[in-house]
Amino acid sequence: MHRKLNMGMIGGGRDSFIGSVHRMAAALDGHCNLACGVFSATPERSRAEGAALHLPPERVYVTFEEMIRAENQLPPGERMDFVSIVVPNHLHFNIARLALETGFAVVCDKPMTYSLEEAHQLEAIVAKTGLLFALTHNYTGYPLVKEARDMVRSGKLGAIRKLVVEYPQGNLATRLESTGNKRAAWRTDPKRSGAANCMADIGTHAENLAEYVTGLKITELCADLTSFVEGRLLDDDGSVLLRLEKGARGILHASKISAGEDNGLRIRVYGEKAGLEWEQQQPNILMYKGMSRPTEIHRAGTGYVSDLARFNARLPAGHPEGFIEAFANIYRNFILSLQARLEGQDPEPEHTDFPTVRDGVRGMAFIATVVESSQSDRKWTKMKEY
Amino acid sequence: MHRKLNMGMIGGGRDSFIGSVHRMAAALDGHCNLACGVFSATPERSRAEGAALHLPPERVYVTFEEMIRAENQLPPGERMDFVSIVVPNHLHFNIARLALETGFAVVCDKPMTYSLEEAHQLEAIVAKTGLLFALTHNYTGYPLVKEARDMVRSGKLGAIRKLVVEYPQGNLATRLESTGNKRAAWRTDPKRSGAANCMADIGTHAENLAEYVTGLKITELCADLTSFVEGRLLDDDGSVLLRLEKGARGILHASKISAGEDNGLRIRVYGEKAGLEWEQQQPNILMYKGMSRPTEIHRAGTGYVSDLARFNARLPAGHPEGFIEAFANIYRNFILSLQARLEGQDPEPEHTDFPTVRDGVRGMAFIATVVESSQSDRKWTKMKEY
Amino acid sequence: MHRKLNMGMIGGGRDSFIGSVHRMAAALDGHCNLACGVFSATPERSRAEGAALHLPPERVYVTFEEMIRAENQLPPGERMDFVSIVVPNHLHFNIARLALETGFAVVCDKPMTYSLEEAHQLEAIVAKTGLLFALTHNYTGYPLVKEARDMVRSGKLGAIRKLVVEYPQGNLATRLESTGNKRAAWRTDPKRSGAANCMADIGTHAENLAEYVTGLKITELCADLTSFVEGRLLDDDGSVLLRLEKGARGILHASKISAGEDNGLRIRVYGEKAGLEWEQQQPNILMYKGMSRPTEIHRAGTGYVSDLARFNARLPAGHPEGFIEAFANIYRNFILSLQARLEGQDPEPEHTDFPTVRDGVRGMAFIATVVESSQSDRKWTKMKEY
Amino acid sequence: MHRKLNMGMIGGGRDSFIGSVHRMAAALDGHCNLACGVFSATPERSRAEGAALHLPPERVYVTFEEMIRAENQLPPGERMDFVSIVVPNHLHFNIARLALETGFAVVCDKPMTYSLEEAHQLEAIVAKTGLLFALTHNYTGYPLVKEARDMVRSGKLGAIRKLVVEYPQGNLATRLESTGNKRAAWRTDPKRSGAANCMADIGTHAENLAEYVTGLKITELCADLTSFVEGRLLDDDGSVLLRLEKGARGILHASKISAGEDNGLRIRVYGEKAGLEWEQQQPNILMYKGMSRPTEIHRAGTGYVSDLARFNARLPAGHPEGFIEAFANIYRNFILSLQARLEGQDPEPEHTDFPTVRDGVRGMAFIATVVESSQSDRKWTKMKEY
Repeated sequence: MHRKLNMGMIGGGRDSFIGSVHRMAAALDGHCNLACGVFSATPERSRAEGAALHLPPERVYVTFEEMIRAENQLPPGERMDFVSIVVPNHLHFNIARLALETGFAVVCDKPMTYSLEEAHQLEAIVAKTGLLFALTHNYTGYPLVKEARDMVRSGKLGAIRKLVVEYPQGNLATRLESTGNKRAAWRTDPKRSGAANCMADIGTHAENLAEYVTGLKITELCADLTSFVEGRLLDDDGSVLLRLEKGARGILHASKISAGEDNGLRIRVYGEKAGLEWEQQQPNILMYKGMSRPTEIHRAGTGYVSDLARFNARLPAGHPEGFIEAFANIYRNFILSLQARLEGQDPEPEHTDFPTVRDGVRGMAFIATVVESSQSDRKWTKMKEY
Repeated sequence: MHRKLNMGMIGGGRDSFIGSVHRMAAALDGHCNLACGVFSATPERSRAEGAALHLPPERVYVTFEEMIRAENQLPPGERMDFVSIVVPNHLHFNIARLALETGFAVVCDKPMTYSLEEAHQLEAIVAKTGLLFALTHNYTGYPLVKEARDMVRSGKLGAIRKLVVEYPQGNLATRLESTGNKRAAWRTDPKRSGAANCMADIGTHAENLAEYVTGLKITELCADLTSFVEGRLLDDDGSVLLRLEKGARGILHASKISAGEDNGLRIRVYGEKAGLEWEQQQPNILMYKGMSRPTEIHRAGTGYVSDLARFNARLPAGHPEGFIEAFANIYRNFILSLQARLEGQDPEPEHTDFPTVRDGVRGMAFIATVVESSQSDRKWTKMKEY
Repeated sequence: MHRKLNMGMIGGGRDSFIGSVHRMAAALDGHCNLACGVFSATPERSRAEGAALHLPPERVYVTFEEMIRAENQLPPGERMDFVSIVVPNHLHFNIARLALETGFAVVCDKPMTYSLEEAHQLEAIVAKTGLLFALTHNYTGYPLVKEARDMVRSGKLGAIRKLVVEYPQGNLATRLESTGNKRAAWRTDPKRSGAANCMADIGTHAENLAEYVTGLKITELCADLTSFVEGRLLDDDGSVLLRLEKGARGILHASKISAGEDNGLRIRVYGEKAGLEWEQQQPNILMYKGMSRPTEIHRAGTGYVSDLARFNARLPAGHPEGFIEAFANIYRNFILSLQARLEGQDPEPEHTDFPTVRDGVRGMAFIATVVESSQSDRKWTKMKEY
Repeated sequence: MHRKLNMGMIGGGRDSFIGSVHRMAAALDGHCNLACGVFSATPERSRAEGAALHLPPERVYVTFEEMIRAENQLPPGERMDFVSIVVPNHLHFNIARLALETGFAVVCDKPMTYSLEEAHQLEAIVAKTGLLFALTHNYTGYPLVKEARDMVRSGKLGAIRKLVVEYPQGNLATRLESTGNKRAAWRTDPKRSGAANCMADIGTHAENLAEYVTGLKITELCADLTSFVEGRLLDDDGSVLLRLEKGARGILHASKISAGEDNGLRIRVYGEKAGLEWEQQQPNILMYKGMSRPTEIHRAGTGYVSDLARFNARLPAGHPEGFIEAFANIYRNFILSLQARLEGQDPEPEHTDFPTVRDGVRGMAFIATVVESSQSDRKWTKMKEY
């Protein structure tokens, strides 16, 4: 029987939506304890956060360097087993590097780094250290996204022709970054967010979903990014024509100025034989669209879904699973893999189904490519990483 | 009280889906009788069709020239008052020209002509003759499309930023044109369909809907058209980045290879203050998406819709109106305008709300532009008519 | 080739929603002309209505007796071939009787009569005269209601166990009858509506739909009718437990005080093998719910529906048909049957698929039974007609 | 800062769906550790389960008496703080009684007891001990169910007239209890389930939801329970007419033989001014149906919902929360209340929003009343507890 693992966190104080998501996702399945963390650069605040999270004071730190060093000196089983990085983009790389080079496995928020260059370096470090690295592209954690991937893989759609992936949001339809909203402030700040805002934050989710479901890589693209809100330095909307491997074509659009939309990630894939459709806001339904026959509503938690989808659902059909459960699938699979590694075993293949540093490099390449394309007069720009 | 008008038809025999739609749409409101027609180039077939439609044999013709000439010699009130053209694209122009030059008002199926050049000529003929000309871009006939237009016009969305219009179909996912299907055969034949298939047949519906709802014209675009089915000479799928007047941007995609889709025309418009969404397959609902407030489901036939929407609905809310009723709105508005004209009056403004030769020119310009753009390495191609 | 038939109307002036529905439904398929009518008991109003409907003055009458007598003296082919009765309930019987006894086929609005006694008498008259009689229970005219019936009949659900049929509306949530609304006034008036309001107007639609789809008759029921709005003399809401033939059980509820609802007729049927669901406000979709397999969305106008559903659809899938088209199916089938009769032939079986005097008797028995049950302390009351 | 509490479990081994739900719900917010448990009556199995759950062997027990006694001897802070009871109905009472009388707060699965008599006794014990008791009627834990309750309370619907609550499932459409399925076996066994199956398991959820949302108690009812599957001793379907306080009326139906349905709990409430609708399978949407105005889609996690709904949501709009999160709201609120109690404080009012022994008594009274009514010839049976 594997032991319960210890998780350390960098970032993610209580006023951080995504910090609490990471903690809930890690806690859900009972395989992991929050053991230590740095929750703020202000010592008092970090300590207060740690106390609220029931951490002993000696395991609450103020800098990531301090935490990584101190934890490394604790005995195995007591020290943290992996670290979750939940800070703005520009800080990911240094933390991840130090953690990996000190010997800690890493869970990192997306987009992976500040730049494509950092992403390539990080990939090399992961390769060199041989440690586990998970990237929280959480939307591919949904059971029915896995079912969609399985449908494509097993040939139920035939050769893929067309892909439509979209991610409309309306939360930056006004100049939220000028109202004291921290998250909006750093996401729209080129020094902290990197080359893009909308395309980095949610465009990469769409890209990751598209490549995960179809199994096809984007080869070239044509992007039109816009910054609609006055004074905003980075994109808040973008539309992209895609060309993918094996002659497939597609469209990707993401927006933070689509007034009235919440979190409308949606994918449609059409092959020679059938199509499929999935939408994040109704995640327990997957539409399978055959030709000359009724469209089928495939539901999560049923007996007829694939092993992959079944392994990533916790409840029978009709009992909605949501965002946290999908996020928790990344943590669970990562932890199950890490438990095996820590005991010198190979992870089960189904446990290795979580986004890795490779997905992170693809995402950063996507960002770099759409930004270059958007500034170019040429129609097609090759994906910078392929 | 206006008299019931007489309608003549060119094309649209019983095996033509769209021919019977024209007849049902024209008959629905009781303001018009089918009076004469040419239903086939084969005399016996034309006669048999006419008889099945309860027409007297002397009013069933074999060529459009014969019909226009013969009808023109009948006394007013007995002769046809207008002619509906329901034949493949390459035949529209000559028929419409002769009808107009002989003095008959015209209802014409879309796309309007074979080429942009013909469209410009036809526009000039309409202008010269001063006769009424309606183009059956039927989707803008739906009451809630008119409501959407009214919402934009009256400022409920604020300045428009983003447009997403799509029209997925799956009916040409296989090589239907090789199976004896007449409609598929001419639509995929460059000699009869013109420069495009998918973009001409349904892409123009999307373009017309977008410009009608937003009141903004497309100024330049970037298109990627594809022919997925082997051996097909014209496009069966296309994705287009749009730039519109006043800085608005958009995406238009249309497809005939989206396996499992029926007729999924859908539009979403986002302004500075709110968004809207309408889908043809659920036409009696219009979503109004405000910021920081509940999304509203506006329903056709209610007391709270605009005068424009109310005038184009026949039933109270909860009594679904569909494709034929929307189509019939074009006929009804055209006929009400024509009745006024025939009696020397100006039509009521609300009766003039139907697509005209101007919409037809826009559509043909759209086709010509997307085809050119798709073959170009330049990112942006200006709309050829603006 | 059959000739176009002549239709006469009693009632249904332009301010009557249902009158114009009858005319549009009759006109849609081009097999019938409006030939004469009585549109008001006030001579000037009747004439004005007739003129607006393009009728010659000599074919516009002031009383139904006058119309039936006068039309009967016109030669066949010129005189009306059938009469449509579109007046309040208490007037149906006398008009229908005179029309039938004079030799005219009848289309009659529902509920069929003022009382169950009249219904039995009318059934006897129809039997004696041998003439065609159609009742406009229009909701069973939808193609997918016919598909639902076919699914049950062909055993796709197995033996039927459970039925849930509901019809929520909100239009009488306030005292509309006191505001000058004519339709609300007679529907809530026991002298004109009969023993019930909600149960008569829409409860019978639910009952008709339930028996049509399942092929099972209600045998006994337990009703709780309420009049929520102060001062209202008849029911505006009712809930009914049902027992049907072959051990099936069910629930029927109908309401006119369900604030915010438009016209929510919906049916769900569950058998030993599968279930189905259909909703009037989204009529082009029928859900087929198998066990341990994906739910299927069956769409109207597809190639895979039954012959019965196909015969009653006019458009391919994705082109919404609505209320008028379903209503028109009753008219079309009735007219096709009548054309055959007039030419001494037997109608095609598929043309006889419209509600008849039998359905009318069932509806009146349902009204009488729910009213009696609601006043009783006994749990179960047998259907008065079985 | 409160300390993390210790949870003990009776029942809920890994093959128990609901056992793992309890654990995930308790773990989600990080305020509670699983500290001990009895997972099986077989010692080896209980131990194996405990080990898989990372429990030390000395905290894994074989009988509930042993656990309660042993834990009571551990020092506060180390011993369990409350016990969760996740076993078949007939075992609830004895366990809950011993736990309470020993001084432990209790979380108990529903229905609360085997009989109404036990329920009344348990209520007396809770009152006498003054300890906290939570019943896991989890569906009222959803944020938008709380929003619905708030809408009614704050008068947005006006006086309530009509209620429709339904809970269709299809999982017992076949004789699942004969196939080795443990859960189906005890639920359909009168010795373990009590007087009802369907009405006890899911009918009480519908009843609890109805009373929670409307704030009205059921006063009398008329039930028709059926056992459709041959050989089954308890009901597998039931339909109930309801009369509630203040003249409201309603319908409740629940079914386990509705083939093809998963878990379709749905409630509609209609008042004098507006209606509302919520469905468990799409739990992040609440429809507010005003009269003569657009229907509004209220979404969880938005800024415009009530404080009550906001307090019970963890994520911003568009990030679906599901079954586990709703379940976790009961645990979180119970734990927050218990932490306060353990420190001698009064719980915050919003923390006391979880179902209690009172809800349990209502549920058991509902079961007893529907069973009696179903066997009676009288129409109305008074709720046995009112």
